[in-house]
Amino acid sequence: MNLPFPIERPTLLLNKVRTFKNIQRMSEKVLRSKVIFRPHFKTHQSAEIGKWFKNFGVRSITVSSLDMAQYFAKNNWNDITVAFPVNILEIKKINELASQVDLGLLVESSEVVQQLGQKLQHNVNIWIKIDVGAGRTGIFWKKFSEILNIVKEIDNYARMNLSGILTHAGQSYRAKSRTEIEFIYYDQVQLMLKVKEYLSSNGIEKLKISIGDTPCCSIVDNFAEVDEIRPGNFVFYDTMQLQIGSCSEEDIAVAVACPIVAIHENKYEIIVYGGAVHLSKDFIISQDNTPIYGYVATPNSDGWGRILPETYVAGLSQEHGIIKSTPSFIKQVAIGDSLIILPVHSCLTVNQMREYYTIKGKRIKTRLS
Amino acid sequence: MNLPFPIERPTLLLNKVRTFKNIQRMSEKVLRSKVIFRPHFKTHQSAEIGKWFKNFGVRSITVSSLDMAQYFAKNNWNDITVAFPVNILEIKKINELASQVDLGLLVESSEVVQQLGQKLQHNVNIWIKIDVGAGRTGIFWKKFSEILNIVKEIDNYARMNLSGILTHAGQSYRAKSRTEIEFIYYDQVQLMLKVKEYLSSNGIEKLKISIGDTPCCSIVDNFAEVDEIRPGNFVFYDTMQLQIGSCSEEDIAVAVACPIVAIHENKYEIIVYGGAVHLSKDFIISQDNTPIYGYVATPNSDGWGRILPETYVAGLSQEHGIIKSTPSFIKQVAIGDSLIILPVHSCLTVNQMREYYTIKGKRIKTRLS
Repeated sequence: MNLPFPIERPTLLLNKVRTFKNIQRMSEKVLRSKVIFRPHFKTHQSAEIGKWFKNFGVRSITVSSLDMAQYFAKNNWNDITVAFPVNILEIKKINELASQVDLGLLVESSEVVQQLGQKLQHNVNIWIKIDVGAGRTGIFWKKFSEILNIVKEIDNYARMNLSGILTHAGQSYRAKSRTEIEFIYYDQVQLMLKVKEYLSSNGIEKLKISIGDTPCCSIVDNFAEVDEIRPGNFVFYDTMQLQIGSCSEEDIAVAVACPIVAIHENKYEIIVYGGAVHLSKDFIISQDNTPIYGYVATPNSDGWGRILPETYVAGLSQEHGIIKSTPSFIKQVAIGDSLIILPVHSCLTVNQMREYYTIKGKRIKTRLS
Repeated sequence: MNLPFPIERPTLLLNKVRTFKNIQRMSEKVLRSKVIFRPHFKTHQSAEIGKWFKNFGVRSITVSSLDMAQYFAKNNWNDITVAFPVNILEIKKINELASQVDLGLLVESSEVVQQLGQKLQHNVNIWIKIDVGAGRTGIFWKKFSEILNIVKEIDNYARMNLSGILTHAGQSYRAKSRTEIEFIYYDQVQLMLKVKEYLSSNGIEKLKISIGDTPCCSIVDNFAEVDEIRPGNFVFYDTMQLQIGSCSEEDIAVAVACPIVAIHENKYEIIVYGGAVHLSKDFIISQDNTPIYGYVATPNSDGWGRILPETYVAGLSQEHGIIKSTPSFIKQVAIGDSLIILPVHSCLTVNQMREYYTIKGKRIKTRLS
């Protein structure tokens, strides 16, 4: 049960081979589909990992905040979409960024288009966010005339270049099977095409369609129907994606090594140093309705082994993790050993941990380091 | 709906008057009870806020990690208990800290006592962690002979000074009424006294009893039965403590100002810039079984007003918050306004936000800033 290198406290491990495979797999599908690959960098938040994507020809990226856009702009990315509804209070940052890079922004109301249009000092690319069923943000796809009104409003401002329509089919995160995810993909494509056709019939041509969610992008092999894909989580995957069926266990590329600080043999529980401030409190629900805050593996010289059967993180406090396990496994561990926790939601875990260590022990910084 | 000062992005507001009142209220009870006040600083994680406690005579503190202990040691705190089971992998930090301050450590097994005892280079104070029903860490209170064995093991090491027995009655966080919390307080005191009496009958005298949870410490008026209290969350409280009944709405001293980026009037939903990376994903369950990620108030020159009826954070993504509200309130808000979210768990929200702004707009740093 030896770690690839010694640790003292919760440490985020990154398997570089798996990460490269994940990027390569998605890149190959993108090439076959002849679409634009605009990966979402909110998952890794790291200039160094960003560079790995350049090996696969990636030139355009997605981020979830203007602060993240500033960081990647400083790190030589010149084509950045902020996939979050425009926050007009940050107009100064928007103008600064728009003077430096090809900046893509999302709008979903005429009101925001007006506010933004009046304050823009540089050209930006505008995407209209469409809701195809996720129900979080965007204009519901059926509201054709509202969408057309936004398009007309955008046309009033010379600095706004309408790139197209964009969606995030977040409902795929609630899918229960690969078939369901395929259905969600084809459904979102049909709905986006309907919006595009409506706008086309009103003289608005050449609009791109951009889609984004990791489950659909992982399971579908060809994206020929759309113009651009923006998955993010696929770079590392996690136990949520494993449960959804977007990835296999061998694709999960980040995990947190956590020192064992107590063993409660009578309860089959192991207490690790590794809590909500390290993993985040996202959870999945198991088949028997139990919340699970992460799966568990043992460390080895390559990083970590298979997910341990009947072993999972059952609870998290600020710094503690409570692992439930089996009588046989409990006998194999000792205080001072470390266990590997495969996170439920790698984006949030990376955001908490703020730095990675490769299996060889090399530190990789994020914008939060 | 004006903020006390302009913001651009999610901003953690701190009401200094309320914070002082919260510290003062607890200090007065401590003085009356003639016990040691060792507040848990994991909630605020700030040297500057730490100083406020000195006005109330506080000289000893609790933290939840050795990193936090190092930070407060650098900021002139000389008596620090790390209320987390000893992580033997951090022995170097333990020895460094023990050479600088009066360091208190928690143990719950003879194994850890041995590992620690063999490697200690300086004197430390040892607390035996007792489980009085929370079920997370500690030796179950009934296991008298195991506890006595640990005491004997500690006695083998000259650098270990046994201070006493310590518990965290975390079950009070699941309480449904003030009466239930009072019961939990008296129950934990009785159980701790039983352990103390057993040890006393075996010749182990002068042991202190240390208790910790904010609900019990908030509701009970006199702690004469114990020697030390270690509440932390009381400095700010939050909506979880409000639901438990530990505080009133007017005691909640931190909240996150979040810009409105979209309004979906037909669904009575408001989308704010403010998500899991700002608030954390902790939630409470409402009476009608709905998860709530925070209550909502409108900003004003004093910070924020009353909690809005039938308005709450219904969901959080990485950066988005979805607020459900009423038809009448939806009509009052506009894009570009900001709303105030009262966090579910202030400790985790502070850990995410990493810096405060007082109502007067003064920045207060934490160790994570």
